[in-house]
Amino acid sequence: MTTTKTIGILGAGQLARMLALAGIPLGLRFVTLDPAPDACASAVSEHIAGEYDDLEKLERFAGMVDVVTYEFENVPAESVKYLSERLLVYPSPEALAVSRDRFAEKSLFAELCIPTPKFIAVDGVEDLRRAVEEIGLPAVLKTRTMGYDGKGQSVIKSKGEIKDAWFRAGGVPCILEEFVPFEREISVVAVRGRNGEFLFYPLGENTHSGGILRRTVCRLDDPMQSAAEGLASRLLERFDYVGVLALELFEADGRLTANEMAPRVHNTGHWSIEGARRSQFENHVRAVAGLPLGCAEAACGSAMVNFIGAMPNAADVLRIGGAHLHDYGKTPRPGRKLGHATVCGGEEAVEAGLNILWKLAGNG
Amino acid sequence: MTTTKTIGILGAGQLARMLALAGIPLGLRFVTLDPAPDACASAVSEHIAGEYDDLEKLERFAGMVDVVTYEFENVPAESVKYLSERLLVYPSPEALAVSRDRFAEKSLFAELCIPTPKFIAVDGVEDLRRAVEEIGLPAVLKTRTMGYDGKGQSVIKSKGEIKDAWFRAGGVPCILEEFVPFEREISVVAVRGRNGEFLFYPLGENTHSGGILRRTVCRLDDPMQSAAEGLASRLLERFDYVGVLALELFEADGRLTANEMAPRVHNTGHWSIEGARRSQFENHVRAVAGLPLGCAEAACGSAMVNFIGAMPNAADVLRIGGAHLHDYGKTPRPGRKLGHATVCGGEEAVEAGLNILWKLAGNG
Repeated sequence: MTTTKTIGILGAGQLARMLALAGIPLGLRFVTLDPAPDACASAVSEHIAGEYDDLEKLERFAGMVDVVTYEFENVPAESVKYLSERLLVYPSPEALAVSRDRFAEKSLFAELCIPTPKFIAVDGVEDLRRAVEEIGLPAVLKTRTMGYDGKGQSVIKSKGEIKDAWFRAGGVPCILEEFVPFEREISVVAVRGRNGEFLFYPLGENTHSGGILRRTVCRLDDPMQSAAEGLASRLLERFDYVGVLALELFEADGRLTANEMAPRVHNTGHWSIEGARRSQFENHVRAVAGLPLGCAEAACGSAMVNFIGAMPNAADVLRIGGAHLHDYGKTPRPGRKLGHATVCGGEEAVEAGLNILWKLAGNG
Repeated sequence: MTTTKTIGILGAGQLARMLALAGIPLGLRFVTLDPAPDACASAVSEHIAGEYDDLEKLERFAGMVDVVTYEFENVPAESVKYLSERLLVYPSPEALAVSRDRFAEKSLFAELCIPTPKFIAVDGVEDLRRAVEEIGLPAVLKTRTMGYDGKGQSVIKSKGEIKDAWFRAGGVPCILEEFVPFEREISVVAVRGRNGEFLFYPLGENTHSGGILRRTVCRLDDPMQSAAEGLASRLLERFDYVGVLALELFEADGRLTANEMAPRVHNTGHWSIEGARRSQFENHVRAVAGLPLGCAEAACGSAMVNFIGAMPNAADVLRIGGAHLHDYGKTPRPGRKLGHATVCGGEEAVEAGLNILWKLAGNG
């Protein structure tokens, strides 16, 4: 067996940073490519500062690594093509291509009988009017590509808002989606190895605000666990998937509807660093490197809170029993994910810690 | 409060590597100084390749960091003096000075009423003859400085071996120690914060061979726990200690005898990365950075096995339930510590895993 020694990661943000922190103890090395010279994963990787479509940088990157993975969906397709012609790229470029285009993603959900809100591709304001007629209001207009953390989305409540919504979206290809009222947002994080073995983490129950994830509570023995696993497994099989995949779901009336998939480690799985036997980061790295997967079971109860725009005082977090701090070392900016904390332990300790963290994170 | 952002570490081996891996998630940065350009902590730190007494390198190092710590005892005293005149150095230079000289160390043990084998300073072969008369045989001749992993030690069993032993030691200042038969080798790892709070990890029960630690089993509820803590606490107080301190002890007939102290994170505490609520590495970093300490309790049972001279196949380790692999990324060399693995879980799982790891490590 060829031993994977060096993993290349497209993107050098916090996900790449946590991948490297999980993989370095296994003896692996990491090379990152990212336009930002001071990207936060540069502390734990050999960092190439360059655009993703800079052919010279891509060539250098490709020459330094044994296998390629990525930390976000919006990698230019041409760059992925270039790399996949030379190296193993995990998860598969097909999964990446589908996930970066909301229309392709929803179409695949439909094809695999994964319930998803009604959706229609929209390429102009007249298209949008027709789509509103068909789907009804309220509805959500989303750009097909480049959307994350609620960017590129707007809710249309009345016909009078159609034109504005179209212009806000920037005149790029969009989809219009049925607005789904839901009781819970949950996500399932799955991991599949090169040899086809696969595991699921316990569900995360998520709270978003302003389109940004604010917290995830790890749900032990959630009644929707096996239903969610069933949906995610269709995606794993379809792509002959290698690595971590996250599927975000809405729950209403005991039914699950798929919102989106992410072919990568996911913010709703950060609790697994301390809350699971092996984290999503370690398992992604193990999968990509062709190593056996580690146990994805919860080690205890846990909940995670994101720090957006500002970091709390480190000592205030570390004084909480059972709390673990993750400061990504990024420059603060409004709306920017700067870090997170996870609190682990029994039910009461987690709830108490979560309440303190929630306030430290500047929430209500 | 001035926030510590960058920790300087003298030495860039596996201990520095694991310190940085524990501290980076807290938002800290690391700068290492070590003569080896490819030292294994360079993957996770800004690495300055230079001798410890290279004044220009020391100056550069000092200019980049907020506080200094070290991963081994044999840092030149002059370098420590230079740094401590400019920066906070933790643990204190006094603790470092004592621990690097076995005679000073044993003398301090005696002063603090910490039981230790009889010892006599020896500066020549005639000294050694007199010391043998006084202490009796068998006895152990050890160089006063630069000893680690059994280097610079030899057992003298008969008077005929005196001259040879002296020449093997290289004619440098030594001590002769009473040979202590023991039933168990144990160690206690302690940590003390800048504000004086302190914690102890559960005892490690250690197995050495050829002078090198081979394995440590974390002992929950060991009957000697409080006695060992009592001895270590005298050292913490004496030095107004900040950081992790390890004290190696022999047990015979229910009595403890101190072998040596290490003013740093210690191989017998590596199990704590996964086996304790917070690892010795995280707590050392938290102490040195002036952050509150984290819980040092065991999270589960655990045992650690060192990989000396050769690494096993990573997949063979990772296939063991509850096993965590640490490959330091070092070039193999006979007798060199290249990595370790820790197995965590219930008593039976730990024993089963330990047996497999023990064989994978090339032991009996």
